[in-house]
Amino acid sequence: MTLRRSWVASANSEATDFPLNNLAYGVFSQGSNPRRLGVAIGEKVLDVAAIADEHLPFACPWLSDQRGWNGLMEAGPEAWEQFRAAISRVLAEGYSEAASVAQHLYSMHEVELHLPFAVTEYTDFYASRDHAFNVGTMFRGAENALPPNWLHIPIGYNGRASSVVVSGTDVVRPWGQVKGPDDALPRFALSRRFDIELEIGAIVGTPSQGPISVDQADANIFGYVLLNDWSARDIQAWEYQPLGPFQSKATATTISPWIVTKAALEPFRCETPEREFELLPHLRDTRPMLYDITLQVTLSPNDGREEVIAQTNYNTMYYSAAQQLAHHTTCGCPMRSGDLLGSGTISGPEKQNRGSLLEITWGGKEPITLESGQTRSFLEDGDRVTFRGAAKGDGFRIGFGICDGTVIANPQPVEVTYSD
Amino acid sequence: MTLRRSWVASANSEATDFPLNNLAYGVFSQGSNPRRLGVAIGEKVLDVAAIADEHLPFACPWLSDQRGWNGLMEAGPEAWEQFRAAISRVLAEGYSEAASVAQHLYSMHEVELHLPFAVTEYTDFYASRDHAFNVGTMFRGAENALPPNWLHIPIGYNGRASSVVVSGTDVVRPWGQVKGPDDALPRFALSRRFDIELEIGAIVGTPSQGPISVDQADANIFGYVLLNDWSARDIQAWEYQPLGPFQSKATATTISPWIVTKAALEPFRCETPEREFELLPHLRDTRPMLYDITLQVTLSPNDGREEVIAQTNYNTMYYSAAQQLAHHTTCGCPMRSGDLLGSGTISGPEKQNRGSLLEITWGGKEPITLESGQTRSFLEDGDRVTFRGAAKGDGFRIGFGICDGTVIANPQPVEVTYSD
Repeated sequence: MTLRRSWVASANSEATDFPLNNLAYGVFSQGSNPRRLGVAIGEKVLDVAAIADEHLPFACPWLSDQRGWNGLMEAGPEAWEQFRAAISRVLAEGYSEAASVAQHLYSMHEVELHLPFAVTEYTDFYASRDHAFNVGTMFRGAENALPPNWLHIPIGYNGRASSVVVSGTDVVRPWGQVKGPDDALPRFALSRRFDIELEIGAIVGTPSQGPISVDQADANIFGYVLLNDWSARDIQAWEYQPLGPFQSKATATTISPWIVTKAALEPFRCETPEREFELLPHLRDTRPMLYDITLQVTLSPNDGREEVIAQTNYNTMYYSAAQQLAHHTTCGCPMRSGDLLGSGTISGPEKQNRGSLLEITWGGKEPITLESGQTRSFLEDGDRVTFRGAAKGDGFRIGFGICDGTVIANPQPVEVTYSD
Repeated sequence: MTLRRSWVASANSEATDFPLNNLAYGVFSQGSNPRRLGVAIGEKVLDVAAIADEHLPFACPWLSDQRGWNGLMEAGPEAWEQFRAAISRVLAEGYSEAASVAQHLYSMHEVELHLPFAVTEYTDFYASRDHAFNVGTMFRGAENALPPNWLHIPIGYNGRASSVVVSGTDVVRPWGQVKGPDDALPRFALSRRFDIELEIGAIVGTPSQGPISVDQADANIFGYVLLNDWSARDIQAWEYQPLGPFQSKATATTISPWIVTKAALEPFRCETPEREFELLPHLRDTRPMLYDITLQVTLSPNDGREEVIAQTNYNTMYYSAAQQLAHHTTCGCPMRSGDLLGSGTISGPEKQNRGSLLEITWGGKEPITLESGQTRSFLEDGDRVTFRGAAKGDGFRIGFGICDGTVIANPQPVEVTYSD
């Protein structure tokens, strides 16, 4: 597939995340003006509501939805396709009324980006085989690394939707109850093993009630974002048995501000890997359901340069988002428009492919040395972590923008809250 | 504390769940009329919006909130108190304009009840020591029954808000992936170990951002409901390691239709039990935070009589809802108005106090025999389960109404969804 050219010059650059082939959806504001729905095109954001009446051949009542793009999601797949086609025509090279549309383009640098949709519920999975193997090996040894169910179902747990924030939001180092292996009793302390998880989030567009097939699940997905599932490993270690991660995962989950639609990623579909156990019929792929998306993690320490600490690809996952969503509905669980499904940490087979510091530093035992000479086992206050991702076509890329956050010191001494 | 008398005669009966002391909040409809906010009084439901202009001394813009009582919750504790006082005056014996109010009372039998509020997120805890001990003993033996963290933190996990339904809603037996101990491979099947969990749900009224104390948590709670956390034990057994219950708990969670306010329960506060480990300061009680609420579970088989299968009391819990909510916020997790916190299964020390069939039948090994001669290990299609609960005063009770649901056969053969 090749570049489709736009009259917005910056959209035709090989380097942009947002060529005409992409058309990612976000929510922006300028100064103190209200939030508006925007489409990313090159270095610009198109104010959709401002051009809708004149340039779109149908009404879009959902453009005033204060939640973000939920209204379009709820309008259904035909509306998704119709809107994408219309915006694509308006921004394509040769559009006769480009000058009138151009008045409603904002520079990416002059707008603030917000959560692109209201997250109804958030589910996090555990679907990278390399990640599960790494973590399992650390905790249980290589022979017992994968739990017995892992090769048969996409393991997931419910996360906390209220903690989802947009890229750029500072993340406050959390308090929590921890107990080291040599401690007699637990104590309440700031997390010292605060970590990232490199993930891709799938957004449910079409609601469902009752079990759905993998094909239907794929059809119900609206789009994808980058996702950082910030994780306090010390809190997690003490709390997670027997009912799973809870406070260790609820400080923040950062997502990138642009929804990359399933339609934009269509040319980049790829197969899930070979399996030693065939999946049960309700989880079997019928066609390629993963995507070839290269991913990169950088760390920018407080007083140092940004440097790459991991690179991997979404195509290494064992389960696709469609499989995860199908599994999510097996028991009859109702799914709603705006539900967010985290892929689980995306790690590849090599050391440089690991999507969490837990794996990169092997539980903190093998700290990494940064260019500045500083070392890191887990995140320090002031550390900024940035995810980037893109599907790469012939002379263009379908990018996600950035998903980043800076860890800041907890400003609240525990005594302020808990007068003992 | 004694009965406060109402001019609604049925509210003065010792047998009613809804004396003037209670004033529980629900959402009702009559025929095809729109849903309206109602207050329970004896055998009647008061249409609040219909009497507000004439009888309440302040505006209640939240009365038109289509979500239910969320608007009042969001208005804050002063508004809660002000509204309760005003409604109490309007319904009290001696109110001079009772005749005008009486026109807006509906019989409980002629209305349909709906979810009393929109559930933003749902969290389920595991906070009855007897329940945790019973379940732990079955799975790990009595010596290792309680997980090491259990006596130090209220263990909880995020549940699925979309699955919360109001009492009276049928519950469809779920499909799921299961694997018996002797099976070589898992299979996709209807759950055969479908169970109940007797719980009380606490509703967060005041939102919070960042850690809050137990006192603040208590202040933020708006009210309580009965809650049945339907659980597919066979699905749970296969899926729950390592990240907790997921599909086993997402078929349905039933709540009673009336929010019993914290204010109504105030006279029934009681202490959490003695502890062998003092809790860390942020989780310590400062005053009685549990409630003395007797609870009862009945089973009505398809073709048989309703009979009691369990009786217990909420006062046996190891952690209060305030402690659970305080713990929930330690990591900075934002809490929102409308968040629902399940107490965890409420079991007492004796066999007849067990709040789940898993415990009552000891994992199915000791089936119970019903009056009809039928036996039950877990629920059969057609079984109706009903929870009742009340705090008992001197000549009156603060009741919750009923929380019930009937298990129905899954109407969807797996082949319909999954064409293999």
